[in-house]
Amino acid sequence: MRKVAIKTPSKSYEVFIEAGLRREIGRRMDDVLAQPASSVLIISDSVVAPLYLDEVKNSFSDLAVHTAVIEAGEASKSFTVFEQLLTKALEAGLDRKSVIVALGGGVVGDIAGFVAATFMRGIRFIQVPTTLLAHDSSVGGKVAINHPLGKNMVGSFHQPEAVFYDTEVLYSLSEREWRSGFAEVMKHGLIRKPSFLTWLQTTISSLESIPVEVLDELLEQSIAVKAEIVAEDEKEAGVRAYLNLGHTLGHALETKLGYGKLTHGEAVVIGIVFAMRLSGKLCGLSANVDDYEKWFQRLGYDTKIPAHLQADELIETMMKDKKTEGGTIRMVLLRSIGEATTMTVSSDEIKQLLVEQVEVD
Amino acid sequence: MRKVAIKTPSKSYEVFIEAGLRREIGRRMDDVLAQPASSVLIISDSVVAPLYLDEVKNSFSDLAVHTAVIEAGEASKSFTVFEQLLTKALEAGLDRKSVIVALGGGVVGDIAGFVAATFMRGIRFIQVPTTLLAHDSSVGGKVAINHPLGKNMVGSFHQPEAVFYDTEVLYSLSEREWRSGFAEVMKHGLIRKPSFLTWLQTTISSLESIPVEVLDELLEQSIAVKAEIVAEDEKEAGVRAYLNLGHTLGHALETKLGYGKLTHGEAVVIGIVFAMRLSGKLCGLSANVDDYEKWFQRLGYDTKIPAHLQADELIETMMKDKKTEGGTIRMVLLRSIGEATTMTVSSDEIKQLLVEQVEVD
Ligand SMILES: NC(=O)c1ccc[n+]([C@@H]2O[C@H](COP(=O)([O-])OP(=O)(O)OC[C@H]3O[C@@H](n4cnc5c(N)ncnc54)[C@H](O)[C@@H]3O)[C@@H](O)[C@H]2O)c1
Ligand SMILES: NC(=O)c1ccc[n+]([C@@H]2O[C@H](COP(=O)([O-])OP(=O)(O)OC[C@H]3O[C@@H](n4cnc5c(N)ncnc54)[C@H](O)[C@@H]3O)[C@@H](O)[C@H]2O)c1
Repeated sequence: MRKVAIKTPSKSYEVFIEAGLRREIGRRMDDVLAQPASSVLIISDSVVAPLYLDEVKNSFSDLAVHTAVIEAGEASKSFTVFEQLLTKALEAGLDRKSVIVALGGGVVGDIAGFVAATFMRGIRFIQVPTTLLAHDSSVGGKVAINHPLGKNMVGSFHQPEAVFYDTEVLYSLSEREWRSGFAEVMKHGLIRKPSFLTWLQTTISSLESIPVEVLDELLEQSIAVKAEIVAEDEKEAGVRAYLNLGHTLGHALETKLGYGKLTHGEAVVIGIVFAMRLSGKLCGLSANVDDYEKWFQRLGYDTKIPAHLQADELIETMMKDKKTEGGTIRMVLLRSIGEATTMTVSSDEIKQLLVEQVEVD
Repeated sequence: MRKVAIKTPSKSYEVFIEAGLRREIGRRMDDVLAQPASSVLIISDSVVAPLYLDEVKNSFSDLAVHTAVIEAGEASKSFTVFEQLLTKALEAGLDRKSVIVALGGGVVGDIAGFVAATFMRGIRFIQVPTTLLAHDSSVGGKVAINHPLGKNMVGSFHQPEAVFYDTEVLYSLSEREWRSGFAEVMKHGLIRKPSFLTWLQTTISSLESIPVEVLDELLEQSIAVKAEIVAEDEKEAGVRAYLNLGHTLGHALETKLGYGKLTHGEAVVIGIVFAMRLSGKLCGLSANVDDYEKWFQRLGYDTKIPAHLQADELIETMMKDKKTEGGTIRMVLLRSIGEATTMTVSSDEIKQLLVEQVEVD
């Protein structure tokens, strides 16, 4: 079994990576909890639950195990579903010693984590990520729901007690979902680990069939980058912001298109290409962005901004992003591959490049 | 000016107590913030706003100051109002450097604090308590909203940057609100400071006209108890639970009667009498509870459980309290005046005493 240690000021815990782990969650949970759980609520979604919920549930022996299944998809990260899950937790009689298990992708992890963060002012939770993207979202304690006026606008920092990552379950993901998650893998290489990025470029030429040994290695390396960053900066006061490479434009695209039209990672890759071009202009990135764009395209990513979107409306949306302060746009850029920085940019500075990246109809 | 220092693992800050302080919030805020605020949202309620909002607002000079006024009363600590306030914050363009100012009693402090705790995963906030009760609720970082199935069930721990307590504003409170707040003052004496309790008993014989010098002294002493406890145990893993003396039954009374029938403190005093009697039975409290009950009654408190309530339904509600774990009832009791403890009690042990405390119709 592979393990990555996560050390933050508020909590230390481990990410366990192993094929078949879903069938052992109950037993493994006992090992990681300092105080035993009084009861468990497993939260999953309508796609994941039919596939894996029973196996996870059956891995618990003498505990009261409750389950809640939300509709699959980003729309579930809402106030309404948040309130429904809290009602469920109360009706199931959860108390301060109970543990919530998030079984699913980033959507389930984010909302189940926020429920855990706020139920009775915070109870423990366990991440059981089932998407490739969730190798990122399940580590580091950022939990949230969306507001109609912006993504992830309401949330907390609440670290899980452990992350149990079963690589086997990733093989039921669609190719789009592989692509969505792989964007965050590449991002980790770009901001922090050039050698890992080079390894990815030489090893991964298609997302259709990554062998399990490659997958395990890739996850361990990618999570290790996240672990380093979170250890240095739990609450995003500094370097943690680098994880937002590609996300300012990415979020604006998701907001303008409506959640779900592009996957999170697909939107992020468009944002990464944009951030790299801007880095060439504003902070001396000398890497050949065209080459990267071609690699992304070979992996199946669309790297252009959809044709019907206007640069101005994207800029306006970017101004409302959490990362902006006082009406400017704060973006993550690259000085070189592996070396990120943040910069405040004006709408004038970015408009031309944005327009150039819009798809020709 | 009087000051009480609050030191918790997550943050240190001060409570400033002074008549007229509301007119200086803007200037004083600058002194306590390490990083300046980018903008401010003052949250108040429909009773407090007409009285004091303008004065507070005018104390800010060159900042963008937004305001939101919620309906006065416990019913506002709801999901709906929570979401409305977050919408307001987004529409006003608040960002991560913005500061929320809670101007009001415990209701405003609790919900505004929870908005601050969750807006963009947490921004700074300032408490400007305007009720006597809020000398307790504004200190220590417990913030929450209610769920139809239980009070304060959804919330966080989020410490303010400072508490600015203007004693002058307390004189517009109704006598019932003085009584509500004074319950928490007596509680602080009962669980931790017998000398303070004796001072209260000899000094305060009526809540109708407490002179301002006595009020200042009383607040400083009472907040000092809270400060000690919060310093020892920020997240309520141990001694902080002692602050819940009288609250298990108190909350059950509020839930069963509907919020607002009894004030929080009125409900707590009934709970305190009950806890003291139970302490005599279960953990050797030798104090004469009748004498205390008479003092409470002289101050205008009703110490009996309203006649139409059944012991069984109260017990059932107490079982659902946050402080209970695994179906038992966890209560704060007194070994002696000034020395609190927690005990798990069964419904059998408490039923007889509960029945005896019900008002004779
Ligand atoms: N908290 C963080 O630090 C962080 C970081 C990045 C992204 N996120 C959030 O993560 C979310 C996106 O996560 P996601 O891409 O995992 O989305 P997701 O949870 O919606 O999963 C994508 C789809 O795959 C399905 N699915 C999940 N596991 C499956 C499996 N094993 N087999 C088949 N189908 C499966 C889901 O039901 C869903 O339909 C966004 O809301 C984003 O904001 C959070
Ligand atoms: N967070 C904590 O640690 C903590 C501790 C104890 C209680 N609480 C919470 O506090 C709440 C009760 O607080 P509260 O008793 O202050 O209630 P409140 O905020 O509802 O205030 C009581 C009434 O007094 C009015 N009012 C406030 N200031 C006034 C003033 N200066 N002059 C005239 N009227 C004024 C209010 O509009 C309201 O109608 C409850 O929700 C309780 O759960 C929280």
